Amino acid sequence: MTNPTAPSDRTRIRRIAENADYQRSTLYAIVDAAYLCHIAFQDAKGTHCIPTACWREGGHLYIHGSNGGRLLKLLSGDVQVCVSITHVDGLVLARSAFNHSMNYRSAVIYGCFERVTEDAAKRAALAAFMESLVPGRQAEIRAGSDKEFAATTVMRIALDEAACKVRSGGPNDDAEDMDIPVWAGVLPLLQTHGAPVVDAQVAVATPGYVLGWQSAV
Amino acid sequence: MTNPTAPSDRTRIRRIAENADYQRSTLYAIVDAAYLCHIAFQDAKGTHCIPTACWREGGHLYIHGSNGGRLLKLLSGDVQVCVSITHVDGLVLARSAFNHSMNYRSAVIYGCFERVTEDAAKRAALAAFMESLVPGRQAEIRAGSDKEFAATTVMRIALDEAACKVRSGGPNDDAEDMDIPVWAGVLPLLQTHGAPVVDAQVAVATPGYVLGWQSAV
Repeated sequence: MTNPTAPSDRTRIRRIAENADYQRSTLYAIVDAAYLCHIAFQDAKGTHCIPTACWREGGHLYIHGSNGGRLLKLLSGDVQVCVSITHVDGLVLARSAFNHSMNYRSAVIYGCFERVTEDAAKRAALAAFMESLVPGRQAEIRAGSDKEFAATTVMRIALDEAACKVRSGGPNDDAEDMDIPVWAGVLPLLQTHGAPVVDAQVAVATPGYVLGWQSAV
Repeated sequence: MTNPTAPSDRTRIRRIAENADYQRSTLYAIVDAAYLCHIAFQDAKGTHCIPTACWREGGHLYIHGSNGGRLLKLLSGDVQVCVSITHVDGLVLARSAFNHSMNYRSAVIYGCFERVTEDAAKRAALAAFMESLVPGRQAEIRAGSDKEFAATTVMRIALDEAACKVRSGGPNDDAEDMDIPVWAGVLPLLQTHGAPVVDAQVAVATPGYVLGWQSAV
């Protein structure tokens, strides 16, 4: 597949440009693999970088929070943001110190967040969030009350002005270093699932998504 | 241990303030567990959020890169930054949709980066980075040449104006939801180590830090 061009000047990757990837499928895969993003924005106190949970629906990245939260209040004011998501996939051990590297997948998204104001759309977005986290759970729990929905802000940003950068594979050594007698290769890093920890007062059978949690990676 | 107060107004956590942690030991542990950070800064093109590898020495967080890179060039100009590191530790499944949460450890650091200009200090910092990634490897590889060191910029930021936020443990359900017959608890997320991938032309015995990689988490 050919790599499209960068959607804007500020998303054009210059440093190690061969790792740049402007394909929408790459962007979606990086967002879908993430539980959270980092949001950079500016206000009267300076530049900030705040982590928050996120999910994707179609061509938008969504976040949510309490109406009272500073982040969402500020983002409602049409402020320009930069949203970043990065996954580290491994340490790349080369024959020289200089050629050591890391394998990673990163996405950087520019734009402004907009509020999801329509009630049904807000409920649908939050249901989609739950479904993305734990498929099937939404039907088992107590759904949000009108008061809880009213206290929650949902916002989204278009995944249009974005760039990804991906490094994979082994070390790129200088030709003259290839005979140095040292181990070279990749030490992979993975996000995996630990054994579920049940709450004290649970009296129901363990559902499939909990039983299968550790083996589903 | 008592929690010190926030070092500045902009590091004072207001939302779910009981998860705020201003202890230096917490901050250091979060930085030491990270391979990368996200750096937010402002320039003529807007607000940016760029991931980069990082490590800690004493009371500073360090980054490095090519002299020609835009990020390091820009940060050399005394620009105010916000550096964020976040680890996701699990999905917290509550009895109501609204009380679902995530367990996490996050650090947010404000300040300005400064260049490490002195040659010996720069070399020592890069050696410390390698040692933090793969203890013992520094002695086996080809060390940086004068040209490679000259092409590399090392910068650091004091870990002084910073705040951490940490959530751990099970769900906090509303009292009236406790009898809802649904599984509740935590689905843990972990960063683990995959099987090392050896480069094609390696003809040496596998070192201990590679043999032990998968079991060292």
